[in-house]
Amino acid sequence: VLRSLAPAAHVIDITHEIPPHDVRAGALCLVRSAQHLCPGIVLAVVDPGVGTARRAVAVEVGGGQSVLVGPDNGLLSMAVSMVGGADRAVSLTNAALQLPSAGPTFAGRDIFAPAAAHLANGVDLLELGDAVDTATLVPGVLPVTAEEDGDLACEVLWVDRYGNAQLNVDPADLDGWGRRVQVAWEGGSRTATVARAYGDLAAGEVGLVADSYGLVAVSLPRSSAAATLGIEAGDRIRLRRLGDDDPDGTEAGVTTAVHVRRN
Amino acid sequence: VLRSLAPAAHVIDITHEIPPHDVRAGALCLVRSAQHLCPGIVLAVVDPGVGTARRAVAVEVGGGQSVLVGPDNGLLSMAVSMVGGADRAVSLTNAALQLPSAGPTFAGRDIFAPAAAHLANGVDLLELGDAVDTATLVPGVLPVTAEEDGDLACEVLWVDRYGNAQLNVDPADLDGWGRRVQVAWEGGSRTATVARAYGDLAAGEVGLVADSYGLVAVSLPRSSAAATLGIEAGDRIRLRRLGDDDPDGTEAGVTTAVHVRRN
Amino acid sequence: VLRSLAPAAHVIDITHEIPPHDVRAGALCLVRSAQHLCPGIVLAVVDPGVGTARRAVAVEVGGGQSVLVGPDNGLLSMAVSMVGGADRAVSLTNAALQLPSAGPTFAGRDIFAPAAAHLANGVDLLELGDAVDTATLVPGVLPVTAEEDGDLACEVLWVDRYGNAQLNVDPADLDGWGRRVQVAWEGGSRTATVARAYGDLAAGEVGLVADSYGLVAVSLPRSSAAATLGIEAGDRIRLRRLGDDDPDGTEAGVTTAVHVRRN
Repeated sequence: VLRSLAPAAHVIDITHEIPPHDVRAGALCLVRSAQHLCPGIVLAVVDPGVGTARRAVAVEVGGGQSVLVGPDNGLLSMAVSMVGGADRAVSLTNAALQLPSAGPTFAGRDIFAPAAAHLANGVDLLELGDAVDTATLVPGVLPVTAEEDGDLACEVLWVDRYGNAQLNVDPADLDGWGRRVQVAWEGGSRTATVARAYGDLAAGEVGLVADSYGLVAVSLPRSSAAATLGIEAGDRIRLRRLGDDDPDGTEAGVTTAVHVRRN
Repeated sequence: VLRSLAPAAHVIDITHEIPPHDVRAGALCLVRSAQHLCPGIVLAVVDPGVGTARRAVAVEVGGGQSVLVGPDNGLLSMAVSMVGGADRAVSLTNAALQLPSAGPTFAGRDIFAPAAAHLANGVDLLELGDAVDTATLVPGVLPVTAEEDGDLACEVLWVDRYGNAQLNVDPADLDGWGRRVQVAWEGGSRTATVARAYGDLAAGEVGLVADSYGLVAVSLPRSSAAATLGIEAGDRIRLRRLGDDDPDGTEAGVTTAVHVRRN
Repeated sequence: VLRSLAPAAHVIDITHEIPPHDVRAGALCLVRSAQHLCPGIVLAVVDPGVGTARRAVAVEVGGGQSVLVGPDNGLLSMAVSMVGGADRAVSLTNAALQLPSAGPTFAGRDIFAPAAAHLANGVDLLELGDAVDTATLVPGVLPVTAEEDGDLACEVLWVDRYGNAQLNVDPADLDGWGRRVQVAWEGGSRTATVARAYGDLAAGEVGLVADSYGLVAVSLPRSSAAATLGIEAGDRIRLRRLGDDDPDGTEAGVTTAVHVRRN
């Protein structure tokens, strides 16, 4: 559809592997990519509410450099915020710039892709439909950390294909914590080593590594921390500062039972 | 190979995820895409008979607008029919327009891709090999529905990545059936609601929804109907009309045992 | 990143499906593709040592026709050898031609992709960093076959998506062996038929087929030999010549227990 309507556009497939219906996973993927997507047209669809009252929107950002096209269900909002917020937005109500649909269930093909293609061809945002107040766009919700009993309560944002569990924790949040940190989750706890690179960890050693997006990830060298420890995206995690001399109560490779609320 | 032989061609990857050896799945995928593939060259390979006597062919359709290239095993035929039938066809016998093969097992790389590339470069169809009678091309077999004891006997054509089970049923086939339909398969039966969009279904409610290809699909909102009900592509399904006041014998979320022949 | 830095480059995704951390699998994939990748820039990343002392390199081959970019961990070396060896190489030390990194863990995005993009734009190899002696590049290790007690001891290089198990065996190695060969692995043995094409095998018949890369593969028609026989990449295999009249001790479809050392 993109090629048919906008033959000159270059199409880059960021991913087709967002889990079905997982708007949050899609939104976080866009955030990870956002700084590399400008200028351009971004088409994103994770759309469990397709065919219902949720709006289809196009959101202009960066003084007109980029437009994000997709459902108004929070998918786009974190990326929009990250690049400075929405300048203008429209609801994709102009059926003349859409494909005739066999059914109401494939907005990606029939509504969003044509909108992205027309934008790539230079069609003005306001031709795609009615302007909407950018303040009415459904916001994204990025979880924040909290201090609880001296611990840092945080959350797994994403598990990458290597099994690294990215936390919503800035490396600076651990400044002064030293080299050893207790990582606790619903199913257990482990003492982790704060390391600069995956390759600096010994076999079986849980690490806290600043990942390529600048966030702290729970890692195991050459194996999946998520699968080994039994954690997944959305899980709550607690980080506890350990003195370098504190007994930590956990031997290398041994997981200790613990209770952490699950989100 | 395509880039080497036809540097100016735009290559679009429709899918690399057809199950191995599943010619029918590949054929149905082409049918779903067919209306968006014209004009152009379509290269399709699901080819369990590679290296045997099955022919390699190129089939021209649409008055020369498009050519489909692939094995003559029924993979291309349904798509060819859908766009009006074959105008001309050749068997890919001209070795001068193929790559030298290390073995007889990779026609996609050595025979089909070069043929598609040469066509994209403007080489005439008849240079690729000997003309063949289009009536001799292996036909595709699209299952038809039948009335059995007042029920509509149909079949699962495809399960999409969300677990929606597409049937070979036109929404018009259910005109006048009302809002409640019994869906029966080999392993059980459920009362389904005829709905306009996935989002119009309540949690756990089985729906019959006109999908994005204009066919009726068995769906569960935000979960996989195929996995939940235990149905897959090729399974036989029976649809039974229920009066709006009929007791339906099935509670929401409860599957009742039933016997339906499997294909 | 490639599009941003080299808008005119054509990007072809060979695969994103190398198993995590499996340098050998990545290296063999490059070897299979190598003859089709020239001229051009090849970007390859399987990099468990990212962020450690392993070098990031760019290796020029073919009298300047191609450059391979990636970690110096053996990933590139077999492909480099296959196309005639390295002409020049540099360590990617020029930070001015890299992206500023959020962490040390994403060399693909921040170091290798920018290097490939700059090369595609015509930047000279030596601008990317310090020249290194090509003799110091980490070599790849392609396993060789050996005769053991009259058998051919070999190894599974790769299992393709159809379950064919490619061996490091040239079809010429089996010249004069006749039509029946015993295939033995850690878990058992089977009598295989030397065949020209998968389609020439009967159902359930294990075949030795020259695959599309010109190597012998253990195959089962329309099913996965690797899954059925329980073999995987890296497994040791022994091939034993059988006279056409020898009783072979294995019935069709029956696997006989045997002991072969695993690598």
